[in-house]
Amino acid sequence: MTTLLSTSDVAKIVALQGPQQVFAGMLDYLLSDFLRWQEFDKSARVASHSATGVIELMPTADSDYYTFKYVNGHPGNPLAGLSTVMAFGALAQVGTGEPLLISELTLTTALRTAATSALAARALARPDSRKMALIGNGAQSEFQALAFHYILGIDTLHVYDVDAGATRKLESNLASVPGLRVVRFDSAAEAAKDTDIVTTVTADKAYATILTADMVEPGMHINAVGGDCPGKTELHADVLRAGPVFVEYEPQTRIEGDLQQMPADFAVTELWRVLTGQSAGRKSAAEVTIFDSVGFALEDFSALRWLRDAAARHGIGARIEVAPQLPDPKNLFDVVRAAQPAHARA
Amino acid sequence: MTTLLSTSDVAKIVALQGPQQVFAGMLDYLLSDFLRWQEFDKSARVASHSATGVIELMPTADSDYYTFKYVNGHPGNPLAGLSTVMAFGALAQVGTGEPLLISELTLTTALRTAATSALAARALARPDSRKMALIGNGAQSEFQALAFHYILGIDTLHVYDVDAGATRKLESNLASVPGLRVVRFDSAAEAAKDTDIVTTVTADKAYATILTADMVEPGMHINAVGGDCPGKTELHADVLRAGPVFVEYEPQTRIEGDLQQMPADFAVTELWRVLTGQSAGRKSAAEVTIFDSVGFALEDFSALRWLRDAAARHGIGARIEVAPQLPDPKNLFDVVRAAQPAHARA
Repeated sequence: MTTLLSTSDVAKIVALQGPQQVFAGMLDYLLSDFLRWQEFDKSARVASHSATGVIELMPTADSDYYTFKYVNGHPGNPLAGLSTVMAFGALAQVGTGEPLLISELTLTTALRTAATSALAARALARPDSRKMALIGNGAQSEFQALAFHYILGIDTLHVYDVDAGATRKLESNLASVPGLRVVRFDSAAEAAKDTDIVTTVTADKAYATILTADMVEPGMHINAVGGDCPGKTELHADVLRAGPVFVEYEPQTRIEGDLQQMPADFAVTELWRVLTGQSAGRKSAAEVTIFDSVGFALEDFSALRWLRDAAARHGIGARIEVAPQLPDPKNLFDVVRAAQPAHARA
Repeated sequence: MTTLLSTSDVAKIVALQGPQQVFAGMLDYLLSDFLRWQEFDKSARVASHSATGVIELMPTADSDYYTFKYVNGHPGNPLAGLSTVMAFGALAQVGTGEPLLISELTLTTALRTAATSALAARALARPDSRKMALIGNGAQSEFQALAFHYILGIDTLHVYDVDAGATRKLESNLASVPGLRVVRFDSAAEAAKDTDIVTTVTADKAYATILTADMVEPGMHINAVGGDCPGKTELHADVLRAGPVFVEYEPQTRIEGDLQQMPADFAVTELWRVLTGQSAGRKSAAEVTIFDSVGFALEDFSALRWLRDAAARHGIGARIEVAPQLPDPKNLFDVVRAAQPAHARA
């Protein structure tokens, strides 16, 4: 039998543990997996593009577990009452192929993306960072805000979105978080001014320029989350030239990240190298660091491991049957016979 | 909300409709999709190999729907009480990325593989075929038997398996099918002798030689189902030289099929070309035809469409939440707030 987690189930886990413990826990799982980067079977995700968006599959595996995520990106969805990003995925045993967990990953993606951003920023941003600009106040923004608040100690958010309603929603959602001040600005440039970290998390599937080089100040860390598929960018190319650029999995980021604007030999450093101490992160307080994040399958692997353990600990989730429980596994036909009304079975 | 179908749900559909109607229905969906082959976004499946087996993702899409299947192949599983092949997958809307159906595909894979075999045989085997050898009497064998009985009019099965228990199970499962005679043989060669169609559906992940050229008789159709991943074959190379070879999707079959033994320029014909009339199938009653089947994502696309329609017609399946139902889709955080106990929500 396979455990099934719905979005409400994952929300229940978050409510039970509280966001602080959730982000700390997920960051632990992420870090332990990033530190053993070489053990993973890695590939760029398999994308299917259409006029309105993209649908992707993101598989990875170590020697024990195989995971994949199904995820879409359709920026026009909110107009139809649907989420821009919807996701689900599974964790299976490599040795038998048995799926142990199938879970929603819509809410989970927001959690794991924010935890990954915080993990990178903890390694790359100035340790005394307290002010963060948050440009793009959509579905993922509160999660970024809370992860940076709890993991990095960010106490002031400068927020901006082209949609003022999105910003009001973020302000309302974060109003009751103790020790976190939210200040609204009328432009990305004003929001970025005088901050330590700039997080861009916008949804438009276009070559957008959310951040230009004139907004970048010495010592800033840029956490670019929203430029994550071909034809979708957030940073002006000059921002990428303002300091060392760090990525999750280079072959994927070259295609999908803000990096897609740069020549193929533009130097980048994979984050795991910094986390393992093989490469330098930030080299001075005045240096600008850039994390060009696109989201990598390894992060969903960590998130699915975390979900499985959390669901087991809290006793949350349904049990479903994606393969029959058969006394003789070679007798698959028995499942059809068993479903027939008794009189037809002879 | 997304519809979820378990293995019991799919078995219920089969029991309600009966296998004859199931195979006829699935064959219709398969044929209509094969006939519009050019409209699909096609790629070879993404495989992750380990010492004990393989886990694969098989995505495809037309302009309306996207589907994928997760499927494993672990020949040692029955010893651990697990099925060799377990599968599940989803059907989603291309326009929004919304997953409409998540379903078990373990039982469904056996159904769609048998329906595809029958579809190919209807186009390639001699119309007067009545006797079929069925070599490999494991989990998929009864489904092959019934699809060929109902679609092709096969009335006599010559069965053989290295595991005599598997053969006894098949005999028992098919004992009550009117008009279908099952005859047991002690070797593949004896089973194949004097038949019109030879179906090989064995599970060993090895370069096996189930069928050799001396067993092939004039006019036979070879339905080779079990040689379906790198390092796993069933036919001696000379069998592939005995007549024209037909495949589902050439780039995938070159890597996975019995074809992997042949030089890269060994000529094959894709099945859709025969079905659309662009290529000849069988050219004479004495010709040997070979269908080197590996299973292609398009077949799961058809099967998932069929499942969705059948589940809706019979009112079968649960409704699950893989993305939250939000009044404001940009307010994903609301799902976390809603899960908190009332006193914590302010």
